[in-house]
Amino acid sequence: MLYPVIICGGAGSRLWPASREKHPKPFLPLPDGQCLLQKTLLRAIRLQGVKDVLTVTNQELFFTTEDIYQEVKKPKDCELNYILEPFGRNTAAAIASAALHLLRRHGPEAIMLVLPADHLIQDEGAFAEATRQACLLAQEGLLVTFGIKPTHAETGFGYIEADTSRNTEHGLRVKRFVEKPDHATAQSYCAAGNFYWNSGMFCFQAGALISEMRAHAPEILDAVEVTLDASPARDNEKLLRLDATSFKKVPDTSIDYALMERSHRVATVPCTIGWSDIGSWSAMCELVEADQDGNRLTGDTVSHSAFNNFVHSPDRLTALVGVQDLIVVDTPDALLITHKEHAQDVKHIAGMLKQSGHEAYLTHRTVHRPWGTYTTVEEGERFKIKRIVVKPGASLSLQMHHHRSEHWIVVSGVALVINGDSELMLNSNESTFIPAGHQHRLANPGVIDLVLIEVQSGDYLGEDDIVRFDDKYGRA
Amino acid sequence: MLYPVIICGGAGSRLWPASREKHPKPFLPLPDGQCLLQKTLLRAIRLQGVKDVLTVTNQELFFTTEDIYQEVKKPKDCELNYILEPFGRNTAAAIASAALHLLRRHGPEAIMLVLPADHLIQDEGAFAEATRQACLLAQEGLLVTFGIKPTHAETGFGYIEADTSRNTEHGLRVKRFVEKPDHATAQSYCAAGNFYWNSGMFCFQAGALISEMRAHAPEILDAVEVTLDASPARDNEKLLRLDATSFKKVPDTSIDYALMERSHRVATVPCTIGWSDIGSWSAMCELVEADQDGNRLTGDTVSHSAFNNFVHSPDRLTALVGVQDLIVVDTPDALLITHKEHAQDVKHIAGMLKQSGHEAYLTHRTVHRPWGTYTTVEEGERFKIKRIVVKPGASLSLQMHHHRSEHWIVVSGVALVINGDSELMLNSNESTFIPAGHQHRLANPGVIDLVLIEVQSGDYLGEDDIVRFDDKYGRA
Repeated sequence: MLYPVIICGGAGSRLWPASREKHPKPFLPLPDGQCLLQKTLLRAIRLQGVKDVLTVTNQELFFTTEDIYQEVKKPKDCELNYILEPFGRNTAAAIASAALHLLRRHGPEAIMLVLPADHLIQDEGAFAEATRQACLLAQEGLLVTFGIKPTHAETGFGYIEADTSRNTEHGLRVKRFVEKPDHATAQSYCAAGNFYWNSGMFCFQAGALISEMRAHAPEILDAVEVTLDASPARDNEKLLRLDATSFKKVPDTSIDYALMERSHRVATVPCTIGWSDIGSWSAMCELVEADQDGNRLTGDTVSHSAFNNFVHSPDRLTALVGVQDLIVVDTPDALLITHKEHAQDVKHIAGMLKQSGHEAYLTHRTVHRPWGTYTTVEEGERFKIKRIVVKPGASLSLQMHHHRSEHWIVVSGVALVINGDSELMLNSNESTFIPAGHQHRLANPGVIDLVLIEVQSGDYLGEDDIVRFDDKYGRA
Repeated sequence: MLYPVIICGGAGSRLWPASREKHPKPFLPLPDGQCLLQKTLLRAIRLQGVKDVLTVTNQELFFTTEDIYQEVKKPKDCELNYILEPFGRNTAAAIASAALHLLRRHGPEAIMLVLPADHLIQDEGAFAEATRQACLLAQEGLLVTFGIKPTHAETGFGYIEADTSRNTEHGLRVKRFVEKPDHATAQSYCAAGNFYWNSGMFCFQAGALISEMRAHAPEILDAVEVTLDASPARDNEKLLRLDATSFKKVPDTSIDYALMERSHRVATVPCTIGWSDIGSWSAMCELVEADQDGNRLTGDTVSHSAFNNFVHSPDRLTALVGVQDLIVVDTPDALLITHKEHAQDVKHIAGMLKQSGHEAYLTHRTVHRPWGTYTTVEEGERFKIKRIVVKPGASLSLQMHHHRSEHWIVVSGVALVINGDSELMLNSNESTFIPAGHQHRLANPGVIDLVLIEVQSGDYLGEDDIVRFDDKYGRA
């Protein structure tokens, strides 16, 4: 049995404005419509002997993760389990939590395959073969990394140096890990032939990981053990919500730094699997086919004397005139224009927005909630218009607002509405009015999405004017 | 008495996407908030002896023109009159119509000052002085042009060559008009010293213009006379709506070509008045102050390593990274990105959109109507959301839709609603439902704008699903 562990987190500030802190890189749809998280799950369940996938993610991302997983066709007997972190605590904490959890459930010989959800693998056959090799090495008690054969002298990744004197049948023993090099060093690594990109994927027995951590990073392991003991599993053990107080005490460090660089039991499987970390818009560009002018355009676009540009503009008309080598990313509330050579610097914009408390750092105009999504369509003086989509069977909290009234108009689907003392069913093209101060609840009792237009009206329309009385997602 | 004649028209396709065919250049707000049309009216009414301003414009632009004029503070005894064209027919037709109309009302000695509404004059004192000189020349029966002293060898304008042998006290006699020159010729014109940019402004007695047209362009004058005879004045003579059938027979040509190049009675007043035709986004850029990086930014903008860019983005966050010399113009439905050197080529985009029948050529997301405006906020499957603003005292037509129902929610102001057989008054935060097939009407009986959110619902939501029974603007 092989237990894939999907690590899903990270802001991906270089992919702003498509990625936001609350809607990070693994959730961005790629040009083919699938997001990296979805691709990672697909890659995991297609491997032989997989019946149980564990995902470690932030608790705020749980419902969106579930939604995305629901779109993936899975074998009936494949279980999806979760460890939910109250906040990000780097990879050592995430991987140690997963290892301990799996060890407790399946014993020390359970083989874990750690898959970060923030990169792309285009050759799935080669990946499956590399995983097979990695499992064989893991069975020998080794901590196995996946070393990507470098295609160029990349300075944005860490490297793994293989110890060529100790080759084994299924892979290479690792001599050392090296941090992101400068260009000249990267060139020498490429020339040497025994240096590989550190992909962040791992394979090992849960027991081997735990015992190596006990040797090299006991303070992390101890804190994780305390956290797991304080975190009761829920929902038939499918959901482990980590206790925040004890998780806060786990040191915030990477598995590479905490363990891999120190352990003497590390191996690597050199591989060529079409790996890309989609680290910036430059990498995203490559996924869209170029037209005869070298432009890679999605959406409604017109151009004149424009060459080698990338435009991602799903919702609006974009016109390019006399420009070259630009990256243009258009979202409903924010627009990015960067030169391809400066794609890495987009992180500075995200940083500036975070520092100034700008909303465009945190969320999109469409916000995901456990029950579905809402999109702020327009805001003006004394009014706000939202499009609300409620998933079949889902229900918003029973709530009340002090300052705003709400007009609800059902566009499609069916709504079950509690409005003060009355309960009514609204079909498409029907509406109701919720006066300020009235307790109300919106639910979708149907089997298709409920789409509703809400027009809020009042002196104050902030999201914080909400009193929750009851909530099926524990937010009351 | 001096009669300013404001000529307001032209698409301004080089200023797309801010200008659209139905919202052309004179209506674009400049960075100071005023549009060129507004500035032109202000310039006209500040001149001595002006009590009557005549505006020649397209009938579709009449209501918007009136709205803009209402924002201008005018002397109480200043009359605003209009000639409304059913379609554009170039400057010869417009100016001849105005001259004939003024001659019939005020006699042949009425002095006209023709002011195109599509350019900017920054030195109003110098303009007033030039106008004073022009009036003196006009009183001698001359057709007076305003010759702008060239500041550089511009190839985008026509030139006026003064006849230096026949100087008069108040200006120069004109030797010839020359078409847009190539760069070398433009340079020689600048060096010569007796060449001026043709600003398109004119000053002459109505009778002098008519008699010169009778001599040099009789077919235009005849057709204009027939048109005026077929066009009864309305609204206490303030409004002359040109008869379409006869106006169609007026040759489509410019006043320069039809008359100025042929007449021997043309003079020019050389002037330096801070004139700019705001011919492209390059000219618009100059009106915004540059920051320390040379960027000229309006709206919510962040930048990193970006220099000498212009961003016009009133509604959305725009981020620039590592780019230079770009012009970025963001509107709710369309975005333009051009290199400054290619600003003239923006017209090709407008042309491509016109050819493909794209809506972004014709209108903005906010559409002006006689009664106010509507803005399409969002469209989706089976629904469309509009924000509707009705001016005080205004009223939409009594109408009916076959395929769509409408939910109306008053956000501010007060609405008088006819809904089938009933009539009701809605205050802010009240709503009503208009089922498909019901006759209905929306009016604003109040003294402040009525703002209303309309959610349309139905199988077909096109603007052409409308039956009008009664309309105070003659559209039934």
